[in-house]
Amino acid sequence: MSKSGGKEAIIVGAGLVGSLWAVFLARRGYSVKVFERRSDMREAGYRGGKSINLAMSERGWKAVEKAGIREKIEKVAIAMPGRMMHGVDSSLTFQPYGKEHEAIYSVSRGGLNLELIDIADQFPNIEFLFDQQCLNVDLDNPVISFENTRTGEVKEYEAPLIFAADGAYSAVRYSLQKTDRFDYRQFYLEHGYKELSIPPTEDGKHRIDPSALHIWPRGNFMLIALPNADGSFTCTLFLPFEGPVSYEKLKTDAEILGFFKEYFPDTLPLIPELLTDFKQNPTSSLVTVNCSPWQWQGRILLLGDAAHAIVPFYGQGMNAGFEDCTILDDLIDEMGENWQAIIPEFARRREKDGNAIAELALRNFIEMRDLVGDPKFLVRKKIAADLHERHPKEFLPVYSMVSFSNTPYHVALREDDSQNALFEKILNLPNIEMEWDGPAVESVFKNWLENKG
Amino acid sequence: MSKSGGKEAIIVGAGLVGSLWAVFLARRGYSVKVFERRSDMREAGYRGGKSINLAMSERGWKAVEKAGIREKIEKVAIAMPGRMMHGVDSSLTFQPYGKEHEAIYSVSRGGLNLELIDIADQFPNIEFLFDQQCLNVDLDNPVISFENTRTGEVKEYEAPLIFAADGAYSAVRYSLQKTDRFDYRQFYLEHGYKELSIPPTEDGKHRIDPSALHIWPRGNFMLIALPNADGSFTCTLFLPFEGPVSYEKLKTDAEILGFFKEYFPDTLPLIPELLTDFKQNPTSSLVTVNCSPWQWQGRILLLGDAAHAIVPFYGQGMNAGFEDCTILDDLIDEMGENWQAIIPEFARRREKDGNAIAELALRNFIEMRDLVGDPKFLVRKKIAADLHERHPKEFLPVYSMVSFSNTPYHVALREDDSQNALFEKILNLPNIEMEWDGPAVESVFKNWLENKG
Repeated sequence: MSKSGGKEAIIVGAGLVGSLWAVFLARRGYSVKVFERRSDMREAGYRGGKSINLAMSERGWKAVEKAGIREKIEKVAIAMPGRMMHGVDSSLTFQPYGKEHEAIYSVSRGGLNLELIDIADQFPNIEFLFDQQCLNVDLDNPVISFENTRTGEVKEYEAPLIFAADGAYSAVRYSLQKTDRFDYRQFYLEHGYKELSIPPTEDGKHRIDPSALHIWPRGNFMLIALPNADGSFTCTLFLPFEGPVSYEKLKTDAEILGFFKEYFPDTLPLIPELLTDFKQNPTSSLVTVNCSPWQWQGRILLLGDAAHAIVPFYGQGMNAGFEDCTILDDLIDEMGENWQAIIPEFARRREKDGNAIAELALRNFIEMRDLVGDPKFLVRKKIAADLHERHPKEFLPVYSMVSFSNTPYHVALREDDSQNALFEKILNLPNIEMEWDGPAVESVFKNWLENKG
Repeated sequence: MSKSGGKEAIIVGAGLVGSLWAVFLARRGYSVKVFERRSDMREAGYRGGKSINLAMSERGWKAVEKAGIREKIEKVAIAMPGRMMHGVDSSLTFQPYGKEHEAIYSVSRGGLNLELIDIADQFPNIEFLFDQQCLNVDLDNPVISFENTRTGEVKEYEAPLIFAADGAYSAVRYSLQKTDRFDYRQFYLEHGYKELSIPPTEDGKHRIDPSALHIWPRGNFMLIALPNADGSFTCTLFLPFEGPVSYEKLKTDAEILGFFKEYFPDTLPLIPELLTDFKQNPTSSLVTVNCSPWQWQGRILLLGDAAHAIVPFYGQGMNAGFEDCTILDDLIDEMGENWQAIIPEFARRREKDGNAIAELALRNFIEMRDLVGDPKFLVRKKIAADLHERHPKEFLPVYSMVSFSNTPYHVALREDDSQNALFEKILNLPNIEMEWDGPAVESVFKNWLENKG
C-alpha cells in the first residue's frame, strides 16, 4: 500500500473541473494523478481563438470557496451586473441581471485554467501528466490506458477510482457508451461560434463599458462581448452554419464587412482585426450531451462536460461543473469516504440537474438572440421584476434562481415551466402594455400562486 | 480496374438488411464484399434465445419483391390477420389488424436471415466474409479495417463505397459519431425481453390459433407469441428490469411460476420448459437509436438498425430496413449511379422517416400493453373502424397506414398526432360508449377533416 494509505484516484482531464476536483481530493489526503491530453499550457500557452469567455456566478463561487481558493480567482474576475443590448441603430439598453450588488463575473477560460493548475500543482499529492491521450477503459479490471502523444508510448494504469472530467468528447464516456442500458445523446445547434477581439485602447482601457455583458441580438443570430482584465473584450459571434444569413455566405472580405456593416455597425470601429480574426479563427460547433448513468459500478464517475456538456447561453457550463465538485464533496461529508455508495448516490441525485441546465441553456439562446425583437419580452421582464419586488419570497425570476442561488437546476427548470405558463396568461390580458402593474396582473398572479401548491 | 468496371461496394453486416442490399447491388452488376462479425450461421447454426420473431408487412414485401425473391420468402411466412388478446381470466378477444385479406406475416429472424444469405450467395459477384469484426473506419482515406476474430489477423480494405448495415451497435456509426455536428441518441426502455417457447403438439400442430399474433397485455408489461412454420410459437416476455413486478423479483422457481400463475395462467400448460427457458435465456435490453446525418461525404451510408434501431412494438424494424433498400434502389433508377448525389439525397429524404417510426414504435408499446385495461381504447378502435368504413378515403387508421401501405412514416406519425387530437375530442363526448356511431361523432369528425387542410 502506498503512503497515501490506498487513497488514490485518477482524474482524466486537467481542464477547469478536473483541476478543481484534484484540489478537493488533495485536501482530503488523496494521492491524485491528473492525465491531460493537451500539452502543459503553462509551457505551450493557452490556445485561444475558440473559447467563449466564462461567466462565473454563485455556484462557481461556492465551489472555489469550498476549495479554499476563492481569493485567487476573484483577482481575475470582472463584475457584470447586467446586460447591455446594442440595437441595429446603435442604441443601448441596459438590463440588470438581478438586484443591486448581484452580478455575474467575466473570467477568461485560459486564465482561470492556468490559475487552477498552478494552485493544484502546489499540492505535493497531485501529479499532472500532460500529452496523455486516453485510449480506453477496461471496465471490468479496472485498467485505463493512455498514449503519450509525444513518444507514442502506451501505458496502462490500475484505477480503482476514476473521475472523468475529460470534456464534451470524453474518451471515458465513449467506453461507457457501449455498456448495456447506457442512455446517451449528443446533438448540435445549427449555429456555430467564432471568436473575435476588441483590443484595449492605447492606454489600456476598455473601449466599451466593462461592467456589462454586451449583446447584439439579431433574431436568429447574435454577437456577444465579455470584458477581460487587460482592457480587451472577447467577442463571440453565434450564427447558423448554413442558410440565408450564415457562415457559408460569408467567404469574401466584402461579404464579411457587409454583414457587420448591416447588422453590427457599431462594432466596426471596435474590432480592428475583424477580417483577420474572422478568417483565421475557426468556426466551432455547439454540442449538448446528456447521458445516464454518469457512473460505472461505483468506481468511475463522469464530471462536468463529460457528463453534461451544454450550450453556453446561460453562462452555466463551468458553474455546473464546479457545482458537481461541491455536491460530490458534500456527499463525502455526509456519507464518509465510501465511494461505492457515494458515486451512485451522486449520479442519482445530480443527473436530473444536468438535464435541466442543458434545457435551460437551450431556452436562453432563444431569449438572448430574440431579446430586442419582441416587445412582449421586455414587458414580461418589467412585470417579472415588479412581481419580485412586491412578492420577493413568492416570486424569484428564474435567471436569478440559476445565477444567484444554489437551488437545484431541476427545481429552476420546473419554475421556468411554471412561470412561462403564468406569463402566457398575463401577456394575453387586454391592454397589458399599459396595465402591466394593474390589478388584473395581480389577480392572475395570485391565482397562479394558489394553484402552484 | 477490376472486371466489375469499378462498380465495387463494401457492406458491413450480413444481417437481414445487409444481405438484402447485397442482392440489390449484385443485380445492378456491383462486385460486393459483405463483412459479418459473427460466424457463418449456415455452419454455426442461428443462435436463438434472444430474437423476437418478425412481422413482415407491406414495406418488407415490397422490398423482397423488388429484389426478385418474394416467392422464396413467402414459403416461410405465416399470415396473422389480427391480434388475439388473452385476459387474466383466460378470455380471448380477436381484433383484426385491417380489412379482410390484410395481414402481417410471422417469420423467424434466423430462418429469414439464412434464406437471404443463401439467395445472395448464389450471385457470383457477392462475397461473404465471416468472423470479421469492424475495428475502425478511417474516414478521410477511406479505409475500413477488420479483425478476423478466428485468426486475429487485421486487414485494411480500401472502400470508396461503404454501406453500414451492422445493426443497432454499428461500429461504422461509432466512427461517424466522433465527427463534427453528428447528432446521435441511444436510449433504452426500462423493460427487458426474454424469449420463451411454446412447442408444437406431438403431431406437429400449433397449440393455439396460428393465424394471430397473441398478446397477454398486463398494463406495464406483456407477453406476446408469434407462430412458427414448425408448429411452435416463439413467445417474448416484456417486463421491467427493476421495480415491484420485474425481472429482479423473479429469481427462484417459485417466484417465476407464481408470476406466470398470477398473470398468464393459460400459458402454463403451453410452455412446458418455462423454468429452463426463463433461467437459461438471457434478458435483453431494448434500445432506440436516432442519428443524423446517416451518411458521410456521399461515400458511407448507414442502413437499417445502424441508422434507426427501434423497439419492436410496431413490428416495423425489419420492414423499415427493407424499405431503406427499396428507396435507395428507387433513387438509383431516378438519379443514375451517381452515389455522390444519391447518398446525401437518401439521407435527406429518409431520416425523418427513421425518426418517425422510432416514435410510433414507442407509442405502440403503450397501446399493446394497455390494450385490455382501458375500455376507452376499445371504443376508440370501434369508432376508428367505423369511420374508415364510412369514409375510406378520408380516414385510414394509422396502424393500416404503417402496416398495409407505403406511405412515408413521417406522414403516418403526423396522422397519428392528428387522430389522437380527434379522438381526444370524440372520447370526451357525453355518453360516448353508447353513442359511438351517433351524429355527435360524425360532427366532430367532419370538423376535424375540414381543419386538417
